[in-house]
Amino acid sequence: MDFFFYPSSAAVFGSFKKGAIAYEILKNILEGGFKGEIIPVNPKGGEIEIAGKKLKIAEKLESRVDVAIIAIPARFVPPLIEEIGDKIKGAVVISAGFSEIGNAELEKELLEKAKEKGVRIIGPNCAGIFGVHANFFGSFEVRVNKGGLALISQSGAFGGAALAMGNEEGIGFSAFVSYGNAADLTESDFLRYFADDENTKAIALYIEGVRDGREFVNALRYATKKKPVIVLKAGKSQSGAKAAQSHTGSLAGAYEIYKAAFRQFGAIEVEEMEELFDAAKAFEMYGSAGRRVAVITNSGGPGVLATDKLEKLGLEIARLGEDTAARLEEFLPPQCSIKNPIDLIADADYERYRKTIEIVCGDGNVDALLVICVPPIFLPSEEIAKAILDAGCRKPVIVNFMAGELVKEGVKLLAEHGIKNFPTPERAAKALMWLYQRSCDGENKN
Amino acid sequence: MDFFFYPSSAAVFGSFKKGAIAYEILKNILEGGFKGEIIPVNPKGGEIEIAGKKLKIAEKLESRVDVAIIAIPARFVPPLIEEIGDKIKGAVVISAGFSEIGNAELEKELLEKAKEKGVRIIGPNCAGIFGVHANFFGSFEVRVNKGGLALISQSGAFGGAALAMGNEEGIGFSAFVSYGNAADLTESDFLRYFADDENTKAIALYIEGVRDGREFVNALRYATKKKPVIVLKAGKSQSGAKAAQSHTGSLAGAYEIYKAAFRQFGAIEVEEMEELFDAAKAFEMYGSAGRRVAVITNSGGPGVLATDKLEKLGLEIARLGEDTAARLEEFLPPQCSIKNPIDLIADADYERYRKTIEIVCGDGNVDALLVICVPPIFLPSEEIAKAILDAGCRKPVIVNFMAGELVKEGVKLLAEHGIKNFPTPERAAKALMWLYQRSCDGENKN
Repeated sequence: MDFFFYPSSAAVFGSFKKGAIAYEILKNILEGGFKGEIIPVNPKGGEIEIAGKKLKIAEKLESRVDVAIIAIPARFVPPLIEEIGDKIKGAVVISAGFSEIGNAELEKELLEKAKEKGVRIIGPNCAGIFGVHANFFGSFEVRVNKGGLALISQSGAFGGAALAMGNEEGIGFSAFVSYGNAADLTESDFLRYFADDENTKAIALYIEGVRDGREFVNALRYATKKKPVIVLKAGKSQSGAKAAQSHTGSLAGAYEIYKAAFRQFGAIEVEEMEELFDAAKAFEMYGSAGRRVAVITNSGGPGVLATDKLEKLGLEIARLGEDTAARLEEFLPPQCSIKNPIDLIADADYERYRKTIEIVCGDGNVDALLVICVPPIFLPSEEIAKAILDAGCRKPVIVNFMAGELVKEGVKLLAEHGIKNFPTPERAAKALMWLYQRSCDGENKN
Repeated sequence: MDFFFYPSSAAVFGSFKKGAIAYEILKNILEGGFKGEIIPVNPKGGEIEIAGKKLKIAEKLESRVDVAIIAIPARFVPPLIEEIGDKIKGAVVISAGFSEIGNAELEKELLEKAKEKGVRIIGPNCAGIFGVHANFFGSFEVRVNKGGLALISQSGAFGGAALAMGNEEGIGFSAFVSYGNAADLTESDFLRYFADDENTKAIALYIEGVRDGREFVNALRYATKKKPVIVLKAGKSQSGAKAAQSHTGSLAGAYEIYKAAFRQFGAIEVEEMEELFDAAKAFEMYGSAGRRVAVITNSGGPGVLATDKLEKLGLEIARLGEDTAARLEEFLPPQCSIKNPIDLIADADYERYRKTIEIVCGDGNVDALLVICVPPIFLPSEEIAKAILDAGCRKPVIVNFMAGELVKEGVKLLAEHGIKNFPTPERAAKALMWLYQRSCDGENKN
């Protein structure tokens, strides 16, 4: 499937009037800096000015391209596939009006033409795809930053919203695919593909239901062996399952079966959209983490909240080694608490954070660190960010800088070095739980 | 306690060097637009330029003021109270160095002097207070917008972070109090006070522990009868309780007793800091809501997620009246789903949202609405915001506009009309759960 996510050339079919779907997709591809050949196609031909360029619109596709992105009325899609099938490897069919409105015949026809021509199909009725590391933004959804998360979404609108929110959460993406009706390629195919994609560090999956349960389970087993798979399953409740059925036609029922499969194969099941982001952030940084956590903070309250949550989630508040306590006592003011959580108190500066992180990171009883920072007094939050970076701890360090605008600069500096921020102590604690679930002794603990 | 939160005059004691605590507090009071008299006091006298003004520093407090804010070394605080006690009604003691570091004697002395002079004390070892409706920002923490939430925090740093994050969440505050060691006035006193404060619509309380359990329970009962009280209790876990003890000296144990009290008196106990904000947002808008919810969305996936969460939380997906279905069918395109969740599909515009909200709001089977909007195609999100406002529904309407930057304008327009946004379907669903807990039939359901 490299021709979808790392294409060297692409054609877009549809209307290129400003605001039309094909226009928006073409614009996204051009503005996204795609380096390959890109051909807009419409029987009327003509020219367009778009993204600061003048482009000729081809009346027909004359040359070979890797992928066709198709946003034309549904009934014209099967004939188009027949016409261009020999020139393309894959087609992303944005067009709606197939099985999702009861038009199963047309979808069958589309699939038959594709099979005849050896063309693989994504969609129909989908929002498109991103191959972010190829700068290929083949969707009208908002472009995203390069990174390690592949997002596979059964719902196009969910996917679009998740991309936009992911941007704000500081997530980097390797790919996005909205697979719509899954006439040909399904969630299982994408799971397998991204499991082997070297730019993908973690996979996030939004599903309401799958058609082929056995194949899904096999693909899930394959993927989870290679990298973290985060799943948000919608349609879990009775009313939710009914709603899912009318939305994607999924038989979303039998949630207990899904749940058991997620657990058996070590997929990370999240309950909420926000958790999907938080787990993704954790796994973009780290593959897993052990159970014993040290909490370092400059404010007692948030330290207590983190501790409560960690313990509730089944993690352990690490018992620090005697040597650690002795070394901390040497330089920390007496008002600091050197028990875990370690409270460096309000006037903690660069040195106090850096030395403490170094010492605690070296403690054999500690598997992972949760570092909290409320807006420091008398110095900018970048100083604390620098301390975290300079400490150079090689164990997982999850960071909670609190109070948005007031710690913005510190958060920015961390982000520039690949450290993502969790805005509350509890969200940071949950990140450590997901990391623990991917560790050997944490398996089957979700 | 009006002299604390609606003072007509105040004096600030401490160092007025730039960056010093007293300087920052004075600056906050001046920049916050306090209309009363404000007197900086330092034995050295002199003048300062601050917040665009030149102010004389008094060597001693000569005139009467409502409140003194004190940020001088701990040992000088009791003599100061003796000296100025006849001229003030209350003192906010920011200074640390009392019982929290084992100096119980000094705290006792402070309290005795205050009692002698009939002065009420907030603190010591606290971050100060805000009386937002009097534009009185007597703390170094970041200033906040006027609104209905009174925040009472045992941890100063937690309070400060919560104020800053509350600003970003669009919460409006009536007051803030960090009560530190609670030598005199305690969480129970503030609960009672804000229960009767007409500008306060809801009270949020962060506690690790209380000293007088009986008085706390009585105050809680009193306050919850009058308005929603949201509680975030820290120190729930074994390790968390230990950490709380070293942080605020609270015997945080016996969490089950706290939990039972919260439940018995209908306090809204939240698990996480973020939930504190979400509950606060809900209660700034509405006093309570019934159990039967209608979900209206322009995207199936988020509608399913909301439905799942609502059902999981014990709410009911309302069964719409027959008349409602008939009226919706009249004007909605056939691809829309007129079952609850109602899916207005991707091209939903102003009219479709407004009419649907009006009709559903009029349905006797519906107690509350959850309105979801992913970035609409072909029109700005303000149009959907306008539709929600123009529908003029008088039942609780909880809104989830998704995808941050892309719906920013819509969210802003709603905020200008007092409608707060919940960024994910699940957070919106939780808001409805808390509102339901405050309804008659929802009592004791948390």
